[in-house]
Amino acid sequence: MSEKLQQLKERLGEVNDLARASDILSWDQQVNMPAHGNQARGQQMATLNKIAQEKFIADEVGRLIADLKQEYDGADPDSDEDALIRVASRNYDKAICVPPEFVSEQALVSAKAFEAWVEARSKSDFSIFRPHLEKVVELVQKYVSFFPPGNHPYDTLLDKYEPGMKTEEVKAIFDGLRPKQVKLLKAIAASKQVKADFLHKKYNEKKLVDFGVGVITKFGYDWSRGRQDKAPHPFQTTFSVDDVRITTRYEEDNPLATMFSTLHESGHAMYEQGSNPAYERTPLSGGTSLAVHESQSRMWENLVGRSLPFWEHFYPSFKKTFPAQLDGVSLKTFYKAINKVEPSFIRVNADEATYNMHIMLRLELEIGMVEGTIAVKDLPEIWNAKMEEYLGVTPPDDARGVLQDIHWSYGAIGYFSTYALGNLVSAQLWEKIRKDIRDLDDQISRGNFDGLLAWLRKNIHQYGHKYDPQVLVQKVTGSRITPEPYVRYLTKKYGEIYGL
Amino acid sequence: MSEKLQQLKERLGEVNDLARASDILSWDQQVNMPAHGNQARGQQMATLNKIAQEKFIADEVGRLIADLKQEYDGADPDSDEDALIRVASRNYDKAICVPPEFVSEQALVSAKAFEAWVEARSKSDFSIFRPHLEKVVELVQKYVSFFPPGNHPYDTLLDKYEPGMKTEEVKAIFDGLRPKQVKLLKAIAASKQVKADFLHKKYNEKKLVDFGVGVITKFGYDWSRGRQDKAPHPFQTTFSVDDVRITTRYEEDNPLATMFSTLHESGHAMYEQGSNPAYERTPLSGGTSLAVHESQSRMWENLVGRSLPFWEHFYPSFKKTFPAQLDGVSLKTFYKAINKVEPSFIRVNADEATYNMHIMLRLELEIGMVEGTIAVKDLPEIWNAKMEEYLGVTPPDDARGVLQDIHWSYGAIGYFSTYALGNLVSAQLWEKIRKDIRDLDDQISRGNFDGLLAWLRKNIHQYGHKYDPQVLVQKVTGSRITPEPYVRYLTKKYGEIYGL
Repeated sequence: MSEKLQQLKERLGEVNDLARASDILSWDQQVNMPAHGNQARGQQMATLNKIAQEKFIADEVGRLIADLKQEYDGADPDSDEDALIRVASRNYDKAICVPPEFVSEQALVSAKAFEAWVEARSKSDFSIFRPHLEKVVELVQKYVSFFPPGNHPYDTLLDKYEPGMKTEEVKAIFDGLRPKQVKLLKAIAASKQVKADFLHKKYNEKKLVDFGVGVITKFGYDWSRGRQDKAPHPFQTTFSVDDVRITTRYEEDNPLATMFSTLHESGHAMYEQGSNPAYERTPLSGGTSLAVHESQSRMWENLVGRSLPFWEHFYPSFKKTFPAQLDGVSLKTFYKAINKVEPSFIRVNADEATYNMHIMLRLELEIGMVEGTIAVKDLPEIWNAKMEEYLGVTPPDDARGVLQDIHWSYGAIGYFSTYALGNLVSAQLWEKIRKDIRDLDDQISRGNFDGLLAWLRKNIHQYGHKYDPQVLVQKVTGSRITPEPYVRYLTKKYGEIYGL
Repeated sequence: MSEKLQQLKERLGEVNDLARASDILSWDQQVNMPAHGNQARGQQMATLNKIAQEKFIADEVGRLIADLKQEYDGADPDSDEDALIRVASRNYDKAICVPPEFVSEQALVSAKAFEAWVEARSKSDFSIFRPHLEKVVELVQKYVSFFPPGNHPYDTLLDKYEPGMKTEEVKAIFDGLRPKQVKLLKAIAASKQVKADFLHKKYNEKKLVDFGVGVITKFGYDWSRGRQDKAPHPFQTTFSVDDVRITTRYEEDNPLATMFSTLHESGHAMYEQGSNPAYERTPLSGGTSLAVHESQSRMWENLVGRSLPFWEHFYPSFKKTFPAQLDGVSLKTFYKAINKVEPSFIRVNADEATYNMHIMLRLELEIGMVEGTIAVKDLPEIWNAKMEEYLGVTPPDDARGVLQDIHWSYGAIGYFSTYALGNLVSAQLWEKIRKDIRDLDDQISRGNFDGLLAWLRKNIHQYGHKYDPQVLVQKVTGSRITPEPYVRYLTKKYGEIYGL
């Protein structure tokens, strides 16, 4: 390795350490921190983020990158060195547009907004969150203004989470998807409904958590390099390839979500645990984009965890764990129930057929907020109107409406569409996996996930950020992100369940 | 406030944020971190400490301090501004002697040494820890070499934990103490022994933890600004005045230590929680020295928590919690048992009469290591020989000998004597408190600790680092640190228990 590359890696390593440290403080804030700790914590994270930003945009980093671009000409797309320089260069070009004071201000505003959001959601009172969200949106608009005007101001935000993705391309994908999902939903609504009342009985929290732990242990989540805790919102976070954590929560109304969210987060975590260790402390470590990340979590949660073969293996022991709740419930009845399609309020608990509709709603609101055509004060009303339009239901309160998600509280606008894109990628990968592993269903029904995880490790996980998301998806499946495989998947699955 | 003072506070605030962030990473390392997370964590903490050091020793900080020393002439010893500039200046003068690369190297070495120590202790195999401790000692000697030669190389180390304290003064204090403690121990050994077998039965861990939690809640530990977790070693750590945490552990052989260590750590924590909030993010926040800190923890653990009035209040409920274990055990018998004097292996579980002997042993070994007259390889043998000499017992293995304490693993050489000094200060303060609060015993026997905590808040806690330890002790008690009150306290207490 050239001396300059070594120097660049050392500098990027420091920046990475600071960012990971901030992530640890954030995890602690959500999992452990006592009630009054928030103000100081916000200040500490603001300092770490500001210094990370200062260190990253230092002139010397720019000089090293420029020199290295001469030295490594990028001719070999499979070279780790070329990939590192390409990703570092792109990140650098973006970062120098943003003043460190802004990063610090945004962290402080986020810390307060998060606190307000927690209170607002618990009291279901949007007015508590509103002034904070207004400030958050103002800062997001300011962030966009730092960049040269692109095709759409929202492109700048999308690019943070899905490098290279454009607002127009997402809209086109969603426009292709929407009519087909609406058609499917109508057909389902017109058919005989499935029974699922037994899912809403009381389930013991600890037993559910233990069951989820048992499942992801079989999946291959490595506990010697991770842990699970309780938090108000389920999430996955990475402190290093050797410390990849997940959280879960218990919901009275939807007890099985405790287990399914564990499956979901384990998908994110196994992606991070599978990243090439040689990429540690560089921008190549971890997942390449949120959509590809979400393809992993949704795959383990839904394509695996809500499939019939999966429950052929696990249902006997699940039923033994909850004999009273599942008395007289057959495997088929249980399988249909956990896949029941029902327009509902909460995105994270939405079934596979309605989920993307929640995302489309958020995308429209975000674009409106960024463009300035939707005011924060009008959000609850617009949210509820769109829920009625898309899903035919109106949230009874803001906690189950506009306040349900954490994302906006910490300034993550531009993030949501990656969830729907992730669904699409998961199905796209799944079609390829089924070709490569002919007896996949059979393996899953025997509780054997080794082949699946090995395939993902080899084709997706190991590459970290090396390939851009669309490049990776193309490389593995032969096509850019497209809605067709997901539509085929939904049509087949729900066709069988609802006898369409 | 002058503009320059504001600038200095901003810079010190950043340094403080980085140090606190490192403390959060360290807490997580000890409380939560999965098995394989250690290498990356060590690297992250090293980076934070290195940057904190770089930021602190920046020329601009030196210039601001120099200018401010002109502006504030230090004439008013009760001025917060003068105190801040004095403490910042002293810390700065020390810090510029140490190269940032050294700080980073020491953090890396410590992370590895800590890991080795955990393994070595669990296997009771000193050879696992030895090469790491050799490296630790080498770095400590290198640290000393950065400073102008003082009276004794060990002074430089002492000064890190007990600003202004000299090796000669500690030796003189200990020389004054040793013969009196030895005389007392001999008198106790010659008298009728107390019964304590019931303390070593099996006690339910959760009930002990809950009892400890109940006690420190009454003490006044503020749970909205703290929490307690399990860790391999009990400790207290501060992330801000609003987030002050403690840990405890369960020991099969000594179950009540679970509770007493909670009382101990709560004393540290209440000191930190009581620091003037205006000192946050400055070097004035938190306790003034480790000895004064230890005076608080030992006071709540021993002078309060092992006193007769305390158990007059708590024994009925304690006995109700553990009826089988304490069947037929009277309050007096219980009180004598928890104060039983018995030379033993483990410092943290040592009774008040033998405790300081453990410290004197460590002080001699540390001085020997720093001087180079004691080699690391010989430590286990010398340790055991000194235990025999001082306490008449020989540890059966290194886990109960030289490997018992965490301190050396993270390079904290110079720390131990503050424990014994803390004992002395606790008794010195106690004599003053008894004069100021005439019915103190009565208040304690009613489970009322408000008066005591208010006294400590007013006379000790609020001042943070504002006064140097000896200045504070002098201000409050009229004398520098002296062994006499502690000897009086021990003589009276054990005189009554052992009928001397």
